[in-house]
Amino acid sequence: MNKRVVLASRPVGPVTDSNFRVEQAPVPKAADGEVVVRNLWLSLDPYMRGRMSDAKSYVKGVEIGEVMVGQTVGEVVDSSHPKLSVGDIVLTQLGWQLYGATREATKIDASRAPPTYYLGLMGMPGLTAYFGLKELGQPKAGETVVVSAASGAVGSVVGQLAKLWGARAVGVAGGTEKCRYVKEELGFDACIDYKSGALREELKAACPKGIDVYFDNVGGEILDTVLAKMNLFGRVVVCGSISDYNSTDPYRVRNWRAILVNRLRVQGMIVFDWKDRYGEALKELGGYLAQGRLRYKESIVQGLENAPRGLMDLLAGKNFGKQLVKL
Amino acid sequence: MNKRVVLASRPVGPVTDSNFRVEQAPVPKAADGEVVVRNLWLSLDPYMRGRMSDAKSYVKGVEIGEVMVGQTVGEVVDSSHPKLSVGDIVLTQLGWQLYGATREATKIDASRAPPTYYLGLMGMPGLTAYFGLKELGQPKAGETVVVSAASGAVGSVVGQLAKLWGARAVGVAGGTEKCRYVKEELGFDACIDYKSGALREELKAACPKGIDVYFDNVGGEILDTVLAKMNLFGRVVVCGSISDYNSTDPYRVRNWRAILVNRLRVQGMIVFDWKDRYGEALKELGGYLAQGRLRYKESIVQGLENAPRGLMDLLAGKNFGKQLVKL
Repeated sequence: MNKRVVLASRPVGPVTDSNFRVEQAPVPKAADGEVVVRNLWLSLDPYMRGRMSDAKSYVKGVEIGEVMVGQTVGEVVDSSHPKLSVGDIVLTQLGWQLYGATREATKIDASRAPPTYYLGLMGMPGLTAYFGLKELGQPKAGETVVVSAASGAVGSVVGQLAKLWGARAVGVAGGTEKCRYVKEELGFDACIDYKSGALREELKAACPKGIDVYFDNVGGEILDTVLAKMNLFGRVVVCGSISDYNSTDPYRVRNWRAILVNRLRVQGMIVFDWKDRYGEALKELGGYLAQGRLRYKESIVQGLENAPRGLMDLLAGKNFGKQLVKL
Repeated sequence: MNKRVVLASRPVGPVTDSNFRVEQAPVPKAADGEVVVRNLWLSLDPYMRGRMSDAKSYVKGVEIGEVMVGQTVGEVVDSSHPKLSVGDIVLTQLGWQLYGATREATKIDASRAPPTYYLGLMGMPGLTAYFGLKELGQPKAGETVVVSAASGAVGSVVGQLAKLWGARAVGVAGGTEKCRYVKEELGFDACIDYKSGALREELKAACPKGIDVYFDNVGGEILDTVLAKMNLFGRVVVCGSISDYNSTDPYRVRNWRAILVNRLRVQGMIVFDWKDRYGEALKELGGYLAQGRLRYKESIVQGLENAPRGLMDLLAGKNFGKQLVKL
């Protein structure tokens, strides 16, 4: 039998267990051109909160009763697909379930990185970091790059790429343990614990020459505090606003005026906008990885039934590194 | 004798008469390399409110007791300048006074436009419209451009250039008379009276294909309402936020999330950033003017003593067209 997690109700405010329902269903058959995949790993990502809502966003939300969306890594167990065979390890969009049938599966190059990395460093989060920083942030050597959610799947790559490209990297993360990791293991120049209550002062101390690039994953008060410290002609990459995702009353930004005064360029991004260039990015990220110049951490939840808890923890900032569910 | 208006105190909230003081002083002499200019026209502009404050901005504020800043058009009455002679009509930064001595005076080409136009259409406001729209707004033919303060010195040029460059131009202005002028005399496709209380609905009706470029001179609620209607990959030119200038509690922007969802590019601008390219812009603006393809209106206050009142009215949206003081 297949097992799957569907959206039972839309959250109002924080996500709760009651927004999900675990169901049994038959394992699907492979129609012509399809593979049946047994999912091994499910990726959990902040964007999933948006899909649980029916507010307008860049992609349509999940309907009530539908399987929750998500990327998975799995093994082909049946194939009517012209290019995929039983036993192939593939990347899919099959969502929160143990089995699924699809035409849209991409064979993973396991010689370049472990399969789960294609859900993180070599997948959407890593590509988001790469294109957001390179194309919108455009850091120059010697400039200061600040990134929020710095210990997360996207933020950890942003800061490391900033360093590789010659800039100063300053992270913002929640808690001393995450900050230690960001600084000592990922090699950022500094990391600020936003829970310390002295964000503004610590940001000033960590960025003595101001901030040239802010890669924003969180929005809210952190965004506002950073905006006030941006340098002339600074760039703000608007990648996410996780601090707002569970809120019924979105944060209102106070320092809009900084855009005018310092002639900032503030730009929103979704990784799909660069889908024609994924190959270029994967080659570069894979190269750094092979050279041991990119560090990467995974956080693993056991079993599909625990995926809802994993997402709730992720949205509350309790995870550490790229969040996966082992199915 | 010279007469001048100095900053007597910094406004808290709206500007009042008590923030200014009229003084007498001797007419200065021309030191080596200087001209003495008798000012004929003073330009009043929204940026002056910022200079009356000591909050951080892109240019240092006016000190208490100093002459209020401003551009003027005047006549050279004494010259020790190598290239300027008595009788020349010049553009200067001499501020709110009848006479001043300076090295920084630019002879006006009166064959191309009347002298006062160099304070408006052929001056900072026109150049602001030109570079902001062309370089940051980048409207394509058939796209929809919305501009606030549409009857003002900058906004009126933005909308007309948008039309000349093949886009649809929609203005936002305060009051039916201004809207009639914007639509019927300036030739915008539509103009919305923000005082009508139905901005959102009227914006929707006037922009059936959404908004591709927003040229923002006002900030506040109008900005937030427009942000919610921006199209995918839209551009927001942050040129001013006049609705905030008199406020002690800046407006907080609610729809920041639109930047992410629609991958907007939001960019701040100051005309000085393009000072090396003024010639190119003046040639193009002068060409349109000569062909009768740009309309332009001036609003005139009589006498230096009335300049404070003129600025207060400008900040309250009571003027109509480019605001000048005839000295």
